[in-house]
Amino acid sequence: MSVDQQLSGSPDIPAAMRASVLICQGEIRIEERPVPTPEPDEVLIKVVAVGVCGSDVHYYREGRIGEFVVDRPLVLGHEVSGHIVAVGSGVPDSRLGERVAIEPQRPCRVCAQCSAGRYNLCPDMKFYATPPIDGAFCDYVTIQSAFAHRVPDSVSYEVAALLEPLSVGIWASRKAKIVPGSRILVAGAGPIGVIATQAARAFGAAEVIVTDPVPERREMARRFGATHTMDPITESVAELGVDAFIDCSGATPAVKSGISAVRGAGTVVLVGMGADEVALPISVIQTRELNVTGIFRYTDTWPTAAHLAATEQVDLASLVTGRFDLEHAEDALNADLKPDSLKAVVLL
Amino acid sequence: MSVDQQLSGSPDIPAAMRASVLICQGEIRIEERPVPTPEPDEVLIKVVAVGVCGSDVHYYREGRIGEFVVDRPLVLGHEVSGHIVAVGSGVPDSRLGERVAIEPQRPCRVCAQCSAGRYNLCPDMKFYATPPIDGAFCDYVTIQSAFAHRVPDSVSYEVAALLEPLSVGIWASRKAKIVPGSRILVAGAGPIGVIATQAARAFGAAEVIVTDPVPERREMARRFGATHTMDPITESVAELGVDAFIDCSGATPAVKSGISAVRGAGTVVLVGMGADEVALPISVIQTRELNVTGIFRYTDTWPTAAHLAATEQVDLASLVTGRFDLEHAEDALNADLKPDSLKAVVLL
Amino acid sequence: MSVDQQLSGSPDIPAAMRASVLICQGEIRIEERPVPTPEPDEVLIKVVAVGVCGSDVHYYREGRIGEFVVDRPLVLGHEVSGHIVAVGSGVPDSRLGERVAIEPQRPCRVCAQCSAGRYNLCPDMKFYATPPIDGAFCDYVTIQSAFAHRVPDSVSYEVAALLEPLSVGIWASRKAKIVPGSRILVAGAGPIGVIATQAARAFGAAEVIVTDPVPERREMARRFGATHTMDPITESVAELGVDAFIDCSGATPAVKSGISAVRGAGTVVLVGMGADEVALPISVIQTRELNVTGIFRYTDTWPTAAHLAATEQVDLASLVTGRFDLEHAEDALNADLKPDSLKAVVLL
Amino acid sequence: MSVDQQLSGSPDIPAAMRASVLICQGEIRIEERPVPTPEPDEVLIKVVAVGVCGSDVHYYREGRIGEFVVDRPLVLGHEVSGHIVAVGSGVPDSRLGERVAIEPQRPCRVCAQCSAGRYNLCPDMKFYATPPIDGAFCDYVTIQSAFAHRVPDSVSYEVAALLEPLSVGIWASRKAKIVPGSRILVAGAGPIGVIATQAARAFGAAEVIVTDPVPERREMARRFGATHTMDPITESVAELGVDAFIDCSGATPAVKSGISAVRGAGTVVLVGMGADEVALPISVIQTRELNVTGIFRYTDTWPTAAHLAATEQVDLASLVTGRFDLEHAEDALNADLKPDSLKAVVLL
Repeated sequence: MSVDQQLSGSPDIPAAMRASVLICQGEIRIEERPVPTPEPDEVLIKVVAVGVCGSDVHYYREGRIGEFVVDRPLVLGHEVSGHIVAVGSGVPDSRLGERVAIEPQRPCRVCAQCSAGRYNLCPDMKFYATPPIDGAFCDYVTIQSAFAHRVPDSVSYEVAALLEPLSVGIWASRKAKIVPGSRILVAGAGPIGVIATQAARAFGAAEVIVTDPVPERREMARRFGATHTMDPITESVAELGVDAFIDCSGATPAVKSGISAVRGAGTVVLVGMGADEVALPISVIQTRELNVTGIFRYTDTWPTAAHLAATEQVDLASLVTGRFDLEHAEDALNADLKPDSLKAVVLL
Repeated sequence: MSVDQQLSGSPDIPAAMRASVLICQGEIRIEERPVPTPEPDEVLIKVVAVGVCGSDVHYYREGRIGEFVVDRPLVLGHEVSGHIVAVGSGVPDSRLGERVAIEPQRPCRVCAQCSAGRYNLCPDMKFYATPPIDGAFCDYVTIQSAFAHRVPDSVSYEVAALLEPLSVGIWASRKAKIVPGSRILVAGAGPIGVIATQAARAFGAAEVIVTDPVPERREMARRFGATHTMDPITESVAELGVDAFIDCSGATPAVKSGISAVRGAGTVVLVGMGADEVALPISVIQTRELNVTGIFRYTDTWPTAAHLAATEQVDLASLVTGRFDLEHAEDALNADLKPDSLKAVVLL
Repeated sequence: MSVDQQLSGSPDIPAAMRASVLICQGEIRIEERPVPTPEPDEVLIKVVAVGVCGSDVHYYREGRIGEFVVDRPLVLGHEVSGHIVAVGSGVPDSRLGERVAIEPQRPCRVCAQCSAGRYNLCPDMKFYATPPIDGAFCDYVTIQSAFAHRVPDSVSYEVAALLEPLSVGIWASRKAKIVPGSRILVAGAGPIGVIATQAARAFGAAEVIVTDPVPERREMARRFGATHTMDPITESVAELGVDAFIDCSGATPAVKSGISAVRGAGTVVLVGMGADEVALPISVIQTRELNVTGIFRYTDTWPTAAHLAATEQVDLASLVTGRFDLEHAEDALNADLKPDSLKAVVLL
Repeated sequence: MSVDQQLSGSPDIPAAMRASVLICQGEIRIEERPVPTPEPDEVLIKVVAVGVCGSDVHYYREGRIGEFVVDRPLVLGHEVSGHIVAVGSGVPDSRLGERVAIEPQRPCRVCAQCSAGRYNLCPDMKFYATPPIDGAFCDYVTIQSAFAHRVPDSVSYEVAALLEPLSVGIWASRKAKIVPGSRILVAGAGPIGVIATQAARAFGAAEVIVTDPVPERREMARRFGATHTMDPITESVAELGVDAFIDCSGATPAVKSGISAVRGAGTVVLVGMGADEVALPISVIQTRELNVTGIFRYTDTWPTAAHLAATEQVDLASLVTGRFDLEHAEDALNADLKPDSLKAVVLL
């Protein structure tokens, strides 16, 4: 049975497609794969742009992230945009042709976490490019209809793909309880730090102080909205008394000093991934009654992300420092080795 | 000018009183001190019962707690009950004779923390028995009128004094967001652990699992409401999936394993004081989006505490394992050296 | 194809069953209906007990509730317990035989409200005994597996059925933000008022003041936990200054006076259904910054309800004032015409 | 004893000052009054600009607002800026000369509401220009030091005075829980409606739909940031499904239709003052579980207001449509009789 027969969709969807596959640690190969068939509640999307995330790079170089091991071929890529070319039996035809950004997760929607509105914590989550679920370095992907988020025409496919990392920044800003006038400290001016900085400003932060030991990265942070930057090697943040600290560095010294920079009853959001265990200043957390939390993906961020991008409250386009076609996806995964790289995008 | 002349109060308040004073580390002496004069918004209280807290013992043995150093004589004791014998010029005479439990803190009430309702985090706090503020091992003390909390006649003075540690348990329960049906893990079955357990049950927790390496303490915890106890040396809590973990041990291994016992989006409340820094499992905090916080004293807990005590939803009376007069306050401070001691009280 | 063939279940499930059907306004008839077949994620339940709710009575007498019209035959009953006799293809056999209380709703789980954890507000909700969805006055019903909540053996089927109205009381208590020590006003001592009173006490309310113009109902309220009752015709609640007011009367004067009884920043929860529009004292809501809300069913209440029932923190058994077999379901619907009736139950 | 002797302050503070006094309903007269002496925790401010509020106009025309009656001469005006010319004994001299915006309230800071951080609900509040407390249509006023909020030099005195009505807009936005991307309905495009619209945009609202029956006011709303306006006489808001509705009209039909425009679990904030009682659609509040509240002044808004004004996220300067000197304060109170008037300011 062909895709054409069972889907309401474009008559010219092919049966097979290209996929850039991580065969095993360090080995990427282009393969032919069958075009997937959407479930009744899903849509089929022709992929147009896919951003490269640090986690993609990590799987490529290390073959694993924590307990998630690449023990069979895996398609990477979870920052995805495209257009809908076919719809499952339960999805209206009217969605055909929509330009969409993909929220790359499929929660069970029934467990206690899902029922409580915390679907990102669903223990049965299927997330793109996380073993054993394939991602989007390929021509076509499927996603549940509700997670193919329409984007306005004014938002380019490249920017639409980057609504995913922006979602991380938005989720961090929500957890940090940023409101108009907040004073925020961000540690680390890599791609996520820069995006978190932009999100914090869009949430109304009056001050976003960014620390990074690398001068070029501090310069980058200022260009993307940091009101002030500091070199953590030579300057102390301890007296800042900020409302919230968002760590995007994963660096133990940054986490420790950042906690000390937060005012009583303030918030600490741990975004960056570093050592599994970090020695935290418990007595500071206690005497100031700080709220320390971490983030794991996001819930309900795409509409906000699309709004911020469409109204140019955040600038995602300027984050893109490299563009690659699917045959050069491996180059995209290695783009971060250049010092001035911020975000690589694969275009199909 | 004598106290009698300036106060609306009992005509037989003496000019001088006894005080048990910590002269320096390890040295307690009874001294004569002037009876304090209440400020216009304060009341003068004849002290009746004072509980001994771990912090009193710590000041006595070590001469300091963190940055708080006993560098001049200090009166210990901050778990206090008594009756009002005089009132300041701005306090109505009708309060004279009231039996009260003292909330032993005086915040500035004007700073940003106070204005926001978090007066426990006031940087200008004056707290009993914390250098250089004297406590209540003496015949008379003053406190702001609003913090002399009336207790019903059915609540004994001993129990009224213990509304202070109960307040710690209530504050921990609030921070832990305990509601009817919650499943809670408590580490450490010392006085605070036992009180936190009772508070958690009073907040409706369906399960309160208490860990302590000492069998006698586990037995104590069960007597005071633990639904289950575990020996952390031989049993793992990692799979419990509790809604909240309250650490009352201050022990690094307990904190670490306790965090791993919490379900996604659950809460960790650090009550016990141990090492300044503790290596925490950051990746667990992140992937489960746990909320980790600590407590520093309390706000607005006495009315709830008095209600729970008066309705016997908590049993404070049975916590008292030793009673001492003021002349033997030093013995009270050493009472914890006996293995079956839980709470010593000084009666005046 | 018979039920036996497609289900993992008891071999002796019949093909047909009895159902008590509301043919049209005021007309109930026993009919034979096919036993329903569970969807893959559902279970089939042999019904044992079904409570009669005010809404059942309303559909029977008036043929409609607001916009919901009985324009074709409808099976009433949504307070249901029973045991699992068959499971859908996606549900483990291990659930067979379980004694369960039914959460009688099926949300879409995908819309914005469901994704946010507010599945009770799902616009595509299918709720038992709400046109055109049939209820449980019949031998067998199906429900999504996650909403067939296991009950301990100590909880009778009658009590298990009444976890549904208890859920209303729990949801009201949550919305009213009741915590240990709260002071609560409840208007109306009918079945829901009495259950809300019990729930409020279980949530720790120190005072639950209940108003009802009928002395017998006030007596009932006291028996079920009211700490104080008032006759709203002769006594004013205006000075109470309670933390929250829960209206279970739907009576306009009760709603208006109840709002005036709430302290600044307190909460008003409108549970009772009366006139579509009620003149509310807006200036009181403004100058006290009250939070006024209403409730519509519930989310995530069964585990708490089962806990409160199993631990006898609420007494549901004593609410039952009449028992009827399915052939006399119409008598059950008329039981409320007797003045001392509180809750009728149909037993199958 | 002269002011000069007891204050740390400018040596040239006169003993007497001008005050524009509301003698009784409809009668304003300039009188000489003694310059007030600051309490130890207060500052003395040379008034520079005072905005005219609807409540000032109401006292002037009606002689009362609800239970607040002008039964002795009253100085109006509570939207105030100026500079500090003297400080009380407990306030550091370093504050002398500061340009400040006044938060015109003095709560007791000790009661339950104050302790909980809700000082705007303090029952012992002393609020400018609310009988019997005088306001600021005069040369000098005193205020508690913490409520004289420094403003940056870039903020004019006129704008600094209008941080007070902006505070109302900020407080409404907070109560409405506006976040980036929110969709908001505002009813009424008078001064407060226009300011609430600006605040909502500053809080990140993606859409702010404003209704007003007057075309010129709708035009005004669009100029100040409304994304869309509607004529409530000819257009229905019922299908909007907004996240929150902020009523700034006080008009019963606007309140009723606005409530129907809110999505499930959304928020209604009643700002406008109209009839004491308004018939609200209770069944809508219930079936959508709306949260309905009102606002009464504000807490902790000046720092945010100053930030929004200084960064030009709101435009307060353009609100000023009339300027008057103190001798013409009565003209300022009548300025609203002209149709294109938005905000009158008295300059001293």
